[in-house]
Amino acid sequence: MPKISQKGMDMPASPIRKLTPFADQAKKEGKKIYHLNIGQPDIQTPEVMLNALKNIDFKVWAYTPSEGTASYRTKLASYYNKLNYNIEPTDILVTNGGSEAITIAMQACLNPGEEVIIPEPFYANYNGFACSSDIVIKPIMSHIENGFALPSIADFEKLITEKTKAIAICNPNNPTGYLYSREELEALRELCLKYDLYLFSDEAYREFCYDGREFISPMHLEGLENNVVVFDTVSKRYSACGARIGCLITKNKELYQTALKFAQARLSPSLEGQIAGEAAVDTPDAYFEAVSKEYTARRDTLVKGLNQIKGVFCPNPGGAFYVVARLPIDNADKFCQWILESFSYENETVMMAPATGFYSTIGFGLNEVRLAYVLNQEDLKKALVCLEKALEAYPGRKEGQ
Amino acid sequence: MPKISQKGMDMPASPIRKLTPFADQAKKEGKKIYHLNIGQPDIQTPEVMLNALKNIDFKVWAYTPSEGTASYRTKLASYYNKLNYNIEPTDILVTNGGSEAITIAMQACLNPGEEVIIPEPFYANYNGFACSSDIVIKPIMSHIENGFALPSIADFEKLITEKTKAIAICNPNNPTGYLYSREELEALRELCLKYDLYLFSDEAYREFCYDGREFISPMHLEGLENNVVVFDTVSKRYSACGARIGCLITKNKELYQTALKFAQARLSPSLEGQIAGEAAVDTPDAYFEAVSKEYTARRDTLVKGLNQIKGVFCPNPGGAFYVVARLPIDNADKFCQWILESFSYENETVMMAPATGFYSTIGFGLNEVRLAYVLNQEDLKKALVCLEKALEAYPGRKEGQ
Repeated sequence: MPKISQKGMDMPASPIRKLTPFADQAKKEGKKIYHLNIGQPDIQTPEVMLNALKNIDFKVWAYTPSEGTASYRTKLASYYNKLNYNIEPTDILVTNGGSEAITIAMQACLNPGEEVIIPEPFYANYNGFACSSDIVIKPIMSHIENGFALPSIADFEKLITEKTKAIAICNPNNPTGYLYSREELEALRELCLKYDLYLFSDEAYREFCYDGREFISPMHLEGLENNVVVFDTVSKRYSACGARIGCLITKNKELYQTALKFAQARLSPSLEGQIAGEAAVDTPDAYFEAVSKEYTARRDTLVKGLNQIKGVFCPNPGGAFYVVARLPIDNADKFCQWILESFSYENETVMMAPATGFYSTIGFGLNEVRLAYVLNQEDLKKALVCLEKALEAYPGRKEGQ
Repeated sequence: MPKISQKGMDMPASPIRKLTPFADQAKKEGKKIYHLNIGQPDIQTPEVMLNALKNIDFKVWAYTPSEGTASYRTKLASYYNKLNYNIEPTDILVTNGGSEAITIAMQACLNPGEEVIIPEPFYANYNGFACSSDIVIKPIMSHIENGFALPSIADFEKLITEKTKAIAICNPNNPTGYLYSREELEALRELCLKYDLYLFSDEAYREFCYDGREFISPMHLEGLENNVVVFDTVSKRYSACGARIGCLITKNKELYQTALKFAQARLSPSLEGQIAGEAAVDTPDAYFEAVSKEYTARRDTLVKGLNQIKGVFCPNPGGAFYVVARLPIDNADKFCQWILESFSYENETVMMAPATGFYSTIGFGLNEVRLAYVLNQEDLKKALVCLEKALEAYPGRKEGQ
């Protein structure tokens, strides 16, 4: 039997899916599970987007250009230019979800063994993309005490070597919900110019900023045109995770042409996904206002409820739809398995993502979990009661860390 | 300005797209172009598949499992088992087009620097996937004189080293249209077992076999269960290239679990594509009978017409919808550019793919072109007249090679 590659063995399994067998078993036993573990919103996809799919009128389901259709890219550029990105359609490369944009950028920018610095905790799948691209993630620690703000520039500089090629941020952040300030981005701008680094900006959650706070992209920073690569997706903006339509944006022409070669090899993104994505740009403002109001209320319910539980601490994040909370527990992996396997309250339980999967540094995140507020407030309240009872009953409870 | 990676520089540009600027210019000048250069069929997508898209009834466009939905994989298994593949739904991993299946298999099976042997001429994008996966393609020459039959096993054995990890075939073949016989596949079976090699089988054109000839897959060979990886796609079977739904099939459980980790990192294939793909399995036989009849007639028209042109030789392939023809020319790249740029007959011209892009060995394919018979017979006949006139007028004509 032929051997699996070393890369195949090294490739990390999805940390979130490790708990799936225990959730399946709990369901079999008749328990109701509140799924706070994944970023699949329950929010409805805009009608204008679904209708575009229902109204397709092509007879031949054909390839599109590798970089995406001209009409979708033009429409997308208008969306970004309303946000003052000041880009052309030719700066946009349409991809199979945001995931593909990340992989292409990693491969086009970094040689095998070169390094990208990413504040941790970070989106766990970055590990998979880095493994598949033979590049190295150098984590830089952010801390729950200050809400996971950007680490100091001095800390970044300590990590920069001749192998460092890029810094990557996710803004608003998955898993922490932290929304970077203009000052933090200006500091990153100086750093990237000083060391000639790419700045990767994963903006999947751009639309989810709360309390009237402003979203700032590296695209808004002057003089960084050749350094910035934005990753985007329709997944969260329009609750269209299953459309698998994303994009890579860069004003760096050489990088764009290089990324295009990777895109050409896989031929094209989906035709119908682009048609729907184009229609989605016309989603009425009222949709986003309603969604923002709903998520703000959910966040408030969740954060307030968490902080009312004895021994729990949860910062109040400015964006996305996640929080990372500190729990009075010995080990988040054990606790998240135990609550599915051995606990129920009124025949209900909660599924959460242990934060260990979002830290690259071994031993971190052991007393933290990520919660996605993708359920309605009634369910969130029930999940909070369930979590409180579980923490009281958990044999591995550990106070005051 | 940060540097592009070496891989980014090495990544090959699509050879087929190199001619696009010349085609665009020809169009601007008012010339009509017969597009025989790409594998985008003009055949209509089955109604049952398009209707599935029009009738979607989900409200939340959600992620599916990374390996694809259970219902699509179950339906797909029934399709393959009608072909006697004898597989389970759990042997199928749904991918973003056939392209992603190839990339995942290369990364899961081969270490950087390891080799896959592929008969040339071969599908040009294999070069891109190999570059992006840091693996090496060792080409093995097939010849136009015998219709591009499988090279001898002795020739394969000469290329096998300790770095050889896999053999890849495309069957029926793109670009040659060659359909491998049972004897050829049995010979590959022995070879792969002898040297413990993976056998990659790209079966995108499985449905396109002519003259009553039987399609044989490595899935039909006994004892090769742990070696075979099939790449498939809905693109050509249902003329649904823009759906970007493919799959990887293997009975090797360890390999499947490894491939799944790569799939988990990119979350999921598209939901609506899988819904349409599932519906497509119910495409009536009459659809395929009509398509097969049409392609057979086109192939006959094209092959006969080509061989009637002075100095042209074209074997009669058993499958797919491509031929590779030998022309009396000095340089296929120059000729294919010249016919767009400097030639027209009755204000029409022809776009073809120079075969050089399908050979990995430098200097081969210089007097060959690939023609896709994706146009109706009337247009094919006009294109043939145009090509004949062009060969008479071409300054680089070169006889008798």
